Amino acid sequence: MTTVTLPAPNPALVRSVAEQAQALTPQLVQWRRHLHAHPELGWQEAATTAYVARHVEALGFDIKTGAPVIGSKTLGAPAEGPAHTGCIAELHFDRPGPTVAIRADLDALPIHEVDTQGQGHRPAEEGWHSQHTGVMHACGHDGHLAIALGIAQIMAAQKALLCGTLRLIFQPAEEGTRGARAIVEQGWLDDVDVFLGFHIGLGVPSDTVALDPVGFLATRKYSVTYHGAPAHAGRAPETGRNALLGACQATLGLHALAQSGQPGIRVNVGTMHAGQALNIVPDEARFGVELRAERQHDLDALDPRVQALITGTAAAHQLEADIRLIGEARDWENPADMVAWAREVAQCSGAFRDTVSRYDVRVSEDATLMTHAVAARGGKAAYMVLGADLPSGHHTAEFDFDEGVLGKGVALVGGMVGVVLGAG
Amino acid sequence: MTTVTLPAPNPALVRSVAEQAQALTPQLVQWRRHLHAHPELGWQEAATTAYVARHVEALGFDIKTGAPVIGSKTLGAPAEGPAHTGCIAELHFDRPGPTVAIRADLDALPIHEVDTQGQGHRPAEEGWHSQHTGVMHACGHDGHLAIALGIAQIMAAQKALLCGTLRLIFQPAEEGTRGARAIVEQGWLDDVDVFLGFHIGLGVPSDTVALDPVGFLATRKYSVTYHGAPAHAGRAPETGRNALLGACQATLGLHALAQSGQPGIRVNVGTMHAGQALNIVPDEARFGVELRAERQHDLDALDPRVQALITGTAAAHQLEADIRLIGEARDWENPADMVAWAREVAQCSGAFRDTVSRYDVRVSEDATLMTHAVAARGGKAAYMVLGADLPSGHHTAEFDFDEGVLGKGVALVGGMVGVVLGAG
Amino acid sequence: MTTVTLPAPNPALVRSVAEQAQALTPQLVQWRRHLHAHPELGWQEAATTAYVARHVEALGFDIKTGAPVIGSKTLGAPAEGPAHTGCIAELHFDRPGPTVAIRADLDALPIHEVDTQGQGHRPAEEGWHSQHTGVMHACGHDGHLAIALGIAQIMAAQKALLCGTLRLIFQPAEEGTRGARAIVEQGWLDDVDVFLGFHIGLGVPSDTVALDPVGFLATRKYSVTYHGAPAHAGRAPETGRNALLGACQATLGLHALAQSGQPGIRVNVGTMHAGQALNIVPDEARFGVELRAERQHDLDALDPRVQALITGTAAAHQLEADIRLIGEARDWENPADMVAWAREVAQCSGAFRDTVSRYDVRVSEDATLMTHAVAARGGKAAYMVLGADLPSGHHTAEFDFDEGVLGKGVALVGGMVGVVLGAG
Amino acid sequence: MTTVTLPAPNPALVRSVAEQAQALTPQLVQWRRHLHAHPELGWQEAATTAYVARHVEALGFDIKTGAPVIGSKTLGAPAEGPAHTGCIAELHFDRPGPTVAIRADLDALPIHEVDTQGQGHRPAEEGWHSQHTGVMHACGHDGHLAIALGIAQIMAAQKALLCGTLRLIFQPAEEGTRGARAIVEQGWLDDVDVFLGFHIGLGVPSDTVALDPVGFLATRKYSVTYHGAPAHAGRAPETGRNALLGACQATLGLHALAQSGQPGIRVNVGTMHAGQALNIVPDEARFGVELRAERQHDLDALDPRVQALITGTAAAHQLEADIRLIGEARDWENPADMVAWAREVAQCSGAFRDTVSRYDVRVSEDATLMTHAVAARGGKAAYMVLGADLPSGHHTAEFDFDEGVLGKGVALVGGMVGVVLGAG
Repeated sequence: MTTVTLPAPNPALVRSVAEQAQALTPQLVQWRRHLHAHPELGWQEAATTAYVARHVEALGFDIKTGAPVIGSKTLGAPAEGPAHTGCIAELHFDRPGPTVAIRADLDALPIHEVDTQGQGHRPAEEGWHSQHTGVMHACGHDGHLAIALGIAQIMAAQKALLCGTLRLIFQPAEEGTRGARAIVEQGWLDDVDVFLGFHIGLGVPSDTVALDPVGFLATRKYSVTYHGAPAHAGRAPETGRNALLGACQATLGLHALAQSGQPGIRVNVGTMHAGQALNIVPDEARFGVELRAERQHDLDALDPRVQALITGTAAAHQLEADIRLIGEARDWENPADMVAWAREVAQCSGAFRDTVSRYDVRVSEDATLMTHAVAARGGKAAYMVLGADLPSGHHTAEFDFDEGVLGKGVALVGGMVGVVLGAG
Repeated sequence: MTTVTLPAPNPALVRSVAEQAQALTPQLVQWRRHLHAHPELGWQEAATTAYVARHVEALGFDIKTGAPVIGSKTLGAPAEGPAHTGCIAELHFDRPGPTVAIRADLDALPIHEVDTQGQGHRPAEEGWHSQHTGVMHACGHDGHLAIALGIAQIMAAQKALLCGTLRLIFQPAEEGTRGARAIVEQGWLDDVDVFLGFHIGLGVPSDTVALDPVGFLATRKYSVTYHGAPAHAGRAPETGRNALLGACQATLGLHALAQSGQPGIRVNVGTMHAGQALNIVPDEARFGVELRAERQHDLDALDPRVQALITGTAAAHQLEADIRLIGEARDWENPADMVAWAREVAQCSGAFRDTVSRYDVRVSEDATLMTHAVAARGGKAAYMVLGADLPSGHHTAEFDFDEGVLGKGVALVGGMVGVVLGAG
Repeated sequence: MTTVTLPAPNPALVRSVAEQAQALTPQLVQWRRHLHAHPELGWQEAATTAYVARHVEALGFDIKTGAPVIGSKTLGAPAEGPAHTGCIAELHFDRPGPTVAIRADLDALPIHEVDTQGQGHRPAEEGWHSQHTGVMHACGHDGHLAIALGIAQIMAAQKALLCGTLRLIFQPAEEGTRGARAIVEQGWLDDVDVFLGFHIGLGVPSDTVALDPVGFLATRKYSVTYHGAPAHAGRAPETGRNALLGACQATLGLHALAQSGQPGIRVNVGTMHAGQALNIVPDEARFGVELRAERQHDLDALDPRVQALITGTAAAHQLEADIRLIGEARDWENPADMVAWAREVAQCSGAFRDTVSRYDVRVSEDATLMTHAVAARGGKAAYMVLGADLPSGHHTAEFDFDEGVLGKGVALVGGMVGVVLGAG
Repeated sequence: MTTVTLPAPNPALVRSVAEQAQALTPQLVQWRRHLHAHPELGWQEAATTAYVARHVEALGFDIKTGAPVIGSKTLGAPAEGPAHTGCIAELHFDRPGPTVAIRADLDALPIHEVDTQGQGHRPAEEGWHSQHTGVMHACGHDGHLAIALGIAQIMAAQKALLCGTLRLIFQPAEEGTRGARAIVEQGWLDDVDVFLGFHIGLGVPSDTVALDPVGFLATRKYSVTYHGAPAHAGRAPETGRNALLGACQATLGLHALAQSGQPGIRVNVGTMHAGQALNIVPDEARFGVELRAERQHDLDALDPRVQALITGTAAAHQLEADIRLIGEARDWENPADMVAWAREVAQCSGAFRDTVSRYDVRVSEDATLMTHAVAARGGKAAYMVLGADLPSGHHTAEFDFDEGVLGKGVALVGGMVGVVLGAG
């Protein structure tokens, strides 16, 4: 395996991409609004997957969806398994060259969007708000998808000039940091030379881009089920094995593990469901645990303590413990050479007027599993924040964003893609 | 207030009732099987109420249903309130005389009855198993209702010979010991001279009756909700008030309260539901608690300790605690004079061949609220167990009972009713 | 192994022993008062052992003390080991015959006896109260020792008439049910044909004897130490392994195990000591646990749950658990033939005017380990309560007893000894 | 209240003090070694107080010791109260002028000093190690006292040149942050114009001084006692009120409070002692809690949550809670003008070759209560770290320090004192 070298930007090409992106803006807005109106929850993005796949297939991309994309071991998917979701779309250029991957996330959130007029919420005022009760694109993934489609269209239009392969990764279930791991495990990052991930908003204003964001929180999320034995609580409680008592003790023990001299350590038991009737010793308890740390190293040190707490407490109460990893993300900082290169491309492009340095995102993002997978094999990876003013915060029922970011995002990220694929 | 005197049994009358009961048996079986096929859960017994009300109204009873029967403060009813359920049916005889009340319970259980042939379950083999998915008369209340209807029919048939009033109490929501309290609070036991409650089966074999059962467990059941404050578990957990942590501590503390030198003390937290997402500090937790004691006095001593545990733990975690009583039953033993009188009637009747003395039921039964209400005002109250062989235990999906108990029950309990009402 | 046959009582012999006991009473009182004034705590009874050993050695008994009596594995002894305590004294008669063992306990309690005049406490009024600050014979073991010495003296006096062997077992550390196990493990009960244990008082009045007491509670007592790792609680708490947190969780979990449908189940964590400074993560926690049940079978079922709770909780917190059994007693009822035989002897003796049947003691007594050991090999064993009025309860600073029990105890128990040894 | 103005340093005076300090070094070493050999624990520093008081009294200082210094409400003192400890020594110069206070701490630690030769521990090699078993000056307070005595001697020697008042505050019980509060409450800081506190070592090397140290951790330390009711754990556990169960729940609840997005939040239950016997429901439990935060504001927000947790848990278990504050310190940063002034004096003095900026101490120090008290009334306060190489860390049995710091400390701190008192 050799280490990828980033080609020097070709200013003319970058500016050309920026001009095409500008011209494409009405189409980008239309795509985004259609997706916004038809949101789907994580692992259930069947229609969204079909929509993006149909579009890029028409542009000449090879398409794979469902099992070849996500395999069968998907974190946090429902017991009956995910819908036919996830898409890998590849455009192979005639000449050999590098493989560039960009990732866009398909899923929406279990939030009911403001859907009445007179509240000042633009999607509702203009009639393109969510058509699906209780589900909403409230994080901006609709924008991410539109940007990816725009880049696909521009690259397909100048196919003759490019070399190598453009791979679009349409990932299910980013919320809860669930989907990335499945795609990494299917090997879709193994041969990637350059990987580009991005998010809009996150507090960065319109016209500004963060090329070296920091503060991605490492996280693991577990779903735990304790299995005991039921008993009539009045007649023979001693014959029961009380799963709820075990879960209560585990919860208290887990919270005590968060105390640390290291930064950003958190342990949260966020949900618990146990028992069936007041007169029965509860024989099953389910609870969900989220771990976080600012540094991967600290999360790795915390994890075995959490496992020991859960299994030891189960043993203490003579329960069986079933621990399932349902979400994961890592820490990440873009490498210095990648940041310098991105800055050069950004200057050529002019799409964003300003840059902000070492912007602290304070969120978990499972694209970090992809960036690490690429970097581990010598590829180059970066994750960027594309600034966009927000009338209301992410994950709120009034979320929206300045759609100006769509064209700018296509211009900048598409410019980077063009630089790599046009260098052959 | 005067103390009621039990009239000496008139053997001829008792035997006459027994003969009529015998003749009525095919009808009793038909009623029971119709009710068995159409079970309804507690507080939702609208169709069952209508069925029994229609029948006894045709016999000349005055009918009251819904609010006049159960009022508005019903334990453990859903937030939207109970269906139109519960019935008081009264037959007023021409001559003045005592008021006799009998109670039958309307509700079924959330159990899915065996519904395929070849399993040896008679209701399924013969096609009169539950038509309502997941709901089943698995305790015998269908039999109780048939017996009450039978008594009503016989008493109505010889109206001219009787005096006073016969009151049928069709009670909702006996399961979970929820329904009796509402009816007592509406005053329906206040003027009762003689109260008769009964249950079939409970381990007593066919042809045997328990006239002085013991071991009714006093119980109280609470639904507790802790309200705290949500917070992002990663960014600012210190701004949350964690309802789940409080509920876990309360659960552990409550279970420790069961240790006692007194008999039959139990504390069970049977259910818990808390939280909405792994990355949110849970701001609400609901849990259900059941207390039991063999003796009312011990339950009364335990109760304030339970209250203190729940409210103190809430204060410890800066939560609001909402504690709702959702079920209640008391201890009970039939008074000696009532037992002696019942034995005389039983001998005249001959319906049951054997009696079992001081049969230990080890269950909670909210008719005990009614027996205490009657006894407190000088009335006479008894609760009896009418023996019936069972192919499978109460509260199982294969429950059924020897339908011979229907005619015998009408004969015995109807005989008692006849003795009181015919003595004028 | 053959089953021992109890010889029919010889009334003349029994009456003779009773007369000698009567004559010996002033001596019995003197012994008891000397012992009362010089109490020693469990496992520290060096002077008491020497006192009784010297006396019976002078009567011709063979003496063993210390290690041959108690071995090296003594429950609940201090880390530096017990003092030179415990005595087995044997009188071998010339003719072969059965081995009869009686047991008396050596230890006193950590109670400061009332030691001023004018309080109505007879030992202080008369000047024979405890000379050892904070230590007191507050359970009556001083009386048990005097009775054993009296029996030894009477049997030695008529050596020529007897056969077999009389074995006196002077046991250390009965309080906390610690000492009996060591003596059983040394084999001192293995060849015993008839074993007689006894306690004075326990609520049985003067002149009454309980020959078939019931309600001996099975118990096990554990001392648990959790070992973790210390850490500076401010700088690096995550490097510690918190033994106190583990001990707190174990305590709460253990108390929840007491809830049972079986009689007399108890789990009590009675002591806890942990930590050294407020700014250090506690790396060691010690706690003591007592289990009880009315029936041995239930204790045996509870014990593995307790062990699992303690070791599982240790694993949960990554601690080492050191669990030491420090006390043990079993349930016990005298066998019917032994009770019938004892009743015969008691009638011949006339020492106690009344008997009380199936007296419920509600205490734990480690002589039950001896009775079981004897019975398991075909021997006959009995434990009796010798009635004595008490001005204040056992284990109080004002405890005393009616010394009339001393002569009566020698008469009755000595009569039984005489019957067995005189039958050859 | 007026704000104090710091006088410009007089270089000649500062250098003169430095020269006198240099000459005094053999005496400083002798004082330090005497004190090192005679350490006393916090609140028990009777001999140490007498030693320093006698010396400065001979120099003409007015002396107050015991109650006028520390009052009666002393944090964390034994129940029988502190020994005759603590000293305020004042030298009043003839001309009016400012009041300068310096603080030195009297107490040693419960550590057994290495006391054998051949271990490389200089105090033992040279024979001036601790003469008091299990007590040791292992933090450097002996050095602090010697420095204060040296400053006293130099200022007394040039009494004619100075104005105002020099106040030496010899504080008991710095370890555990216990003693400062008592002195502040007696008003000894109310009229102070310039306050100077200092510590040797703390990781700062010889020849270096930290004039603007940061990272003083705000802390509060509580001793909590829960009082319940005892009961026989076998016979009637329900009559007890279990203080140990309450303490265990409080411990688990308290540790969960440490999870926070704010820096340096810690909650540690460092000690627990409960119960008296295995068969008694524990009626008393004592535990010690330490809270920390990097910022006073966060500690102030945490404190009421801790109080609620402790009192609510007590209420939950029907216990009485006795919460005693036994230690307290605040955050602190020297004000910018004070740092600039100190830097000027340090340059004139030349005692320390280097300075280290914003040195992060990561400790709690109760002199911060004094600095805040002075600053709150318009006075000037600073706390400095005087560098000294250490062969072994603070609070270890091999602790010692480079005694070169003694002369340098007198030179620098004495220079500052001289500048203020000589400016009149």
